[in-house]
Amino acid sequence: MQIQTPYLLFLGDAQDLLSAKTAFGIAYWRPEKCMGQLRLPGCKVDLKIQDLSLEEAFQKGAKTLIIGVANRGGIISPEWIPILQKALVLGYDLASGLHQRLNDIVELKETAQLHKRFLFDVRHPQEDFQVATGLKRTGKRLLTVGTDCSVGKMFTSLALARDMKEKGFSVDFRATGQTGIFIASSGVSIDAVISDFVAGATETLSPNNQENHWDIIEGQGSLFHPSFAAVTLGLIHGSQPDAIIMCHEPNRPHMRGLPHFMLPSIEECIDLNLKAARLTNPNVECVGISFNTSLMPVSERLSFLENMEKKYNYPCIDPTIDTMSIVDRLKQSYKVAC
Amino acid sequence: MQIQTPYLLFLGDAQDLLSAKTAFGIAYWRPEKCMGQLRLPGCKVDLKIQDLSLEEAFQKGAKTLIIGVANRGGIISPEWIPILQKALVLGYDLASGLHQRLNDIVELKETAQLHKRFLFDVRHPQEDFQVATGLKRTGKRLLTVGTDCSVGKMFTSLALARDMKEKGFSVDFRATGQTGIFIASSGVSIDAVISDFVAGATETLSPNNQENHWDIIEGQGSLFHPSFAAVTLGLIHGSQPDAIIMCHEPNRPHMRGLPHFMLPSIEECIDLNLKAARLTNPNVECVGISFNTSLMPVSERLSFLENMEKKYNYPCIDPTIDTMSIVDRLKQSYKVAC
Repeated sequence: MQIQTPYLLFLGDAQDLLSAKTAFGIAYWRPEKCMGQLRLPGCKVDLKIQDLSLEEAFQKGAKTLIIGVANRGGIISPEWIPILQKALVLGYDLASGLHQRLNDIVELKETAQLHKRFLFDVRHPQEDFQVATGLKRTGKRLLTVGTDCSVGKMFTSLALARDMKEKGFSVDFRATGQTGIFIASSGVSIDAVISDFVAGATETLSPNNQENHWDIIEGQGSLFHPSFAAVTLGLIHGSQPDAIIMCHEPNRPHMRGLPHFMLPSIEECIDLNLKAARLTNPNVECVGISFNTSLMPVSERLSFLENMEKKYNYPCIDPTIDTMSIVDRLKQSYKVAC
Repeated sequence: MQIQTPYLLFLGDAQDLLSAKTAFGIAYWRPEKCMGQLRLPGCKVDLKIQDLSLEEAFQKGAKTLIIGVANRGGIISPEWIPILQKALVLGYDLASGLHQRLNDIVELKETAQLHKRFLFDVRHPQEDFQVATGLKRTGKRLLTVGTDCSVGKMFTSLALARDMKEKGFSVDFRATGQTGIFIASSGVSIDAVISDFVAGATETLSPNNQENHWDIIEGQGSLFHPSFAAVTLGLIHGSQPDAIIMCHEPNRPHMRGLPHFMLPSIEECIDLNLKAARLTNPNVECVGISFNTSLMPVSERLSFLENMEKKYNYPCIDPTIDTMSIVDRLKQSYKVAC
């Protein structure tokens, strides 16, 4: 699956940034892939990129219309369908991260077939995956893991991949969730894979590579989240990471969505993730901790990170500032020639 | 999903017992559910139950024709289709544990609709599961876990449930694989569930119950199997087991299908399973070890189990002999009034 770029980002009549967070993520991380935004009357979100009609963006070279908005229930609004059909007729592919599938809407499916366009439902993997082999692959891999869901694993992965590239590493970001997939234009929505094939799908996502090449694999869930730990473990085993980064949100009172579950300590979370990862890569190391300090006053953030480094004895970063102490650690640990 | 009994077991032209192991398992554990066997010319397997035609078995009261045989590729042979159609017309439901779905064969689907019969593809869950809540449920649960795949988790679960029932426990076997599902007439093929919902599906499988009631949940895979550990972890978290039994096959040279992966030690496997299970049930205990000693001379099996009890300090059983030392342990530990 390779989604053609550049994109036109469809925002519908989104009322707040949260409902357009997929589009926001794409525009933030890959502005060069975003030709513009398409907003319906009443839309209250503005990604500060050019407003373009379907025709204008297509003439400028846009290839795919991305549904970058989620309404309640994750469905495709009936009012959108004529617009999506028109896009197909013009020559766009369509891509969506919603629960409801483009491929399940007869009008869209027929129009796409007629005009030989693709419909990408990135939340619903269409590939047939194999069972994992556990065989060691060439190249290097880093996986972001977390004390909980939604603690900055995607953000950390993208910031690190960007900073490593700047420092001369050969590096790819490997996406495992829908926003990440639009950013990378490929990937696997790993929590939607049949459980038997989670580790196998992850092996496919990050194939053999040059010995000095790094795949930075976007993590999902947490080994300590009772709803999603299965996804996390399959991702760990299939990634065979040489390195992990522990991601943490210091202000979270309990596991996301589960007031009856406390967060684990960072130390025990690192321990259990390393133990799990050693099954398929005995040499795995933790190379740092990533903190989401966005709720702290700016003046306190750097001293917080310094204190955490002293406490945990790992490089500690906030990826919204930079990831350099981890990039340096990778350079030293793996003697990478950059 | 509730499969109607009694069954007629369809063996096709199976050439060996291995290809008919699903039918064998049903006839072994639930002879009272099996009206008879239906064999095609050339079939070399005999389950030592009555040979009956479709008509004969139906007249005697059979409700479901079970495809209890797997040929290469897990497909439904074209020669079977007229027989399966005839069964539907007579009034049977059909149930299959094969990869290929009965529901994907147009002739069968149409015939079933016309005659208002059910097609059960037990390897492909049709329910919509929810994400796990991690909320504690009432009643007691025991989960079989293993050092590897195919080490006797289903067999141990069934033997234990039988022996507990004999000793007056209130107990249900909860099936998580296709043979188990036919035996129980219900269950969830857990490795075929979307990874996000594995723990949630397991919660559904074993709902709130009387405080003294035990669900004996059939385990799958192993936390140490790099292909399937994700399934195992979701099953552990969703089961919220009060007790686990570790299952082990003493003669296995390496992890099943993976010559490059050694088996874990029994101790470390118990440790990791307890650690994982404590997330959703802090009081979980290991109540015994189940050994498959079928490859040992009969004269050595009991002394082997005695030695293992001394070595590991847990009740050690071979479920093909009996499970009584574990039943006794459960009685003592949980002060069950039987």
